[in-house]
Amino acid sequence: MTFSVNILGCGSATPTARHLPSSQVINFREQLMMIDCGEGAQRQYRMMRLKFSRLNHIFISHLHGDHFFGLPGLLSTLALHEVGGTIVIHTFQQGVEYLRRTMDLFCSDTSFNIEYDVITPEHRVILDTKALTVETFPLKHRVPTVGFIFREKPKPRHIRPDMIAFHQVPVAQINAIREGADFMRPDGRIIPNALLTTDANPSLSYAYCSDTAFDPKIAEFLRGVDTIYHEATYLLDNAHKAAPRGHSTAAEAGQIAQAAGARRLILGHYSQAYTDDSLFAREAATTFNGEIIAATEGLTIDLL
Amino acid sequence: MTFSVNILGCGSATPTARHLPSSQVINFREQLMMIDCGEGAQRQYRMMRLKFSRLNHIFISHLHGDHFFGLPGLLSTLALHEVGGTIVIHTFQQGVEYLRRTMDLFCSDTSFNIEYDVITPEHRVILDTKALTVETFPLKHRVPTVGFIFREKPKPRHIRPDMIAFHQVPVAQINAIREGADFMRPDGRIIPNALLTTDANPSLSYAYCSDTAFDPKIAEFLRGVDTIYHEATYLLDNAHKAAPRGHSTAAEAGQIAQAAGARRLILGHYSQAYTDDSLFAREAATTFNGEIIAATEGLTIDLL
Repeated sequence: MTFSVNILGCGSATPTARHLPSSQVINFREQLMMIDCGEGAQRQYRMMRLKFSRLNHIFISHLHGDHFFGLPGLLSTLALHEVGGTIVIHTFQQGVEYLRRTMDLFCSDTSFNIEYDVITPEHRVILDTKALTVETFPLKHRVPTVGFIFREKPKPRHIRPDMIAFHQVPVAQINAIREGADFMRPDGRIIPNALLTTDANPSLSYAYCSDTAFDPKIAEFLRGVDTIYHEATYLLDNAHKAAPRGHSTAAEAGQIAQAAGARRLILGHYSQAYTDDSLFAREAATTFNGEIIAATEGLTIDLL
Repeated sequence: MTFSVNILGCGSATPTARHLPSSQVINFREQLMMIDCGEGAQRQYRMMRLKFSRLNHIFISHLHGDHFFGLPGLLSTLALHEVGGTIVIHTFQQGVEYLRRTMDLFCSDTSFNIEYDVITPEHRVILDTKALTVETFPLKHRVPTVGFIFREKPKPRHIRPDMIAFHQVPVAQINAIREGADFMRPDGRIIPNALLTTDANPSLSYAYCSDTAFDPKIAEFLRGVDTIYHEATYLLDNAHKAAPRGHSTAAEAGQIAQAAGARRLILGHYSQAYTDDSLFAREAATTFNGEIIAATEGLTIDLL
């Protein structure tokens, strides 16, 4: 059951030879959801052989061009490829209005439905499916900005075939037992679920935090989240630039992940002033004890 | 005196691994002018080491995304790089309105002035500088579309230093003689210009024709133009698709260049259905006798 993050772009502000602006694609059990869509995202999407037909949700964290300017082109290309179904775009009200105008002018006839879901800079669940929830929470940037948390819902417990056979459990009851039900035998004896099943695989979770200045409140929203992507625009040498511009250093990203108790931290949104991305991981390691990954275009990270 | 064309993108419709959508940069004596701005143009601009500070004019042929969607990002990046001066954007009225809104929302504070020049699908001079004119002329596409002709004005004639010395021409009169004046000696004798100078270098010209269906009228507008870029979306195998979609085949591009009497033809706007661009040049050679260049990203073509 796939749950992975594909890095389409992890640079800041503007595309360079080395990095594209922000964009990621979550693969949740072969359904694809995009987070942010900087210029060039559609090309990287194709180069990573992600399927257009699997894309159902696009989440936009804030209305800065390096998180948005790839979206009109992506939607036009989806129309050109005659992708069907519905694509839900989750963005701020101004983004909805701008996108409507854009599509009216450049791509008035799409093969798919576009649904707009207006987001606000608050902590709330904006998507709740059978197996997943997506939450927004406020980040601290120069314009209204949200992070996103993707939480897998509890998974079914594992059936113990030996015990199912021994107690002659009818097939019709297996699903209920996977969900935690006990079994009553025909003779009235109750077999507790714990004897029939073993623990479910852990439910994974992923949070996207970009763009944001360092804000300890973020760690509270992220408590219990497994893997955190947190922007790291600067290293310590430019730490003084971070807060005034609404950005963080790698060490601050590490502090948030540490305070949230995360298992894994992914870094990105690097300033183009730097040419060695490994330095970001090195500085984050001074404040975070878990696994650290410096994002790069083309990388797929399995969240297991 | 540089006069060259830089190919930033020569694919059609959508960025692929092989091609970017339409964009070119004319270098006219170290002043840069962009024609069309598909997604990814700004990145290619930087990779070709073109200077942001030299860009003064942007010409948009029509309002289809593959000729336009790179523009908001480019302008934002110019602002980020604190480029000064004025950038004139020549585009249709709807494009002006859309760009104003885009800049208001995403980039309200630019370091440079933006001037908008509204173009119409007519044949007229839209820019007239000391050394160059730029003309629009109508193309035949699915929405209002223009081509652009860049014509170098006549250059000064070459002075013959031996004759200037022999006739003791004062320095103050040299410029007039370069422009074609005769010289009157103190003794009243007239020395005709032809004895004092040799012919100027030829004035070069370049035309951009994309997107368009085959239209013999285009050849009339282009009569006397040296180098023509003409779209060649299809090869003969897909010739039936060309006209209904407002596009041309490579052989039709050759026909236009031949009828116009051009010296050189540059092909581009290739459909992504093809993987061997050399086939476009081969088919154009069946209808055009001059030099043929199949455009590719990163190519700089000296118009000499």
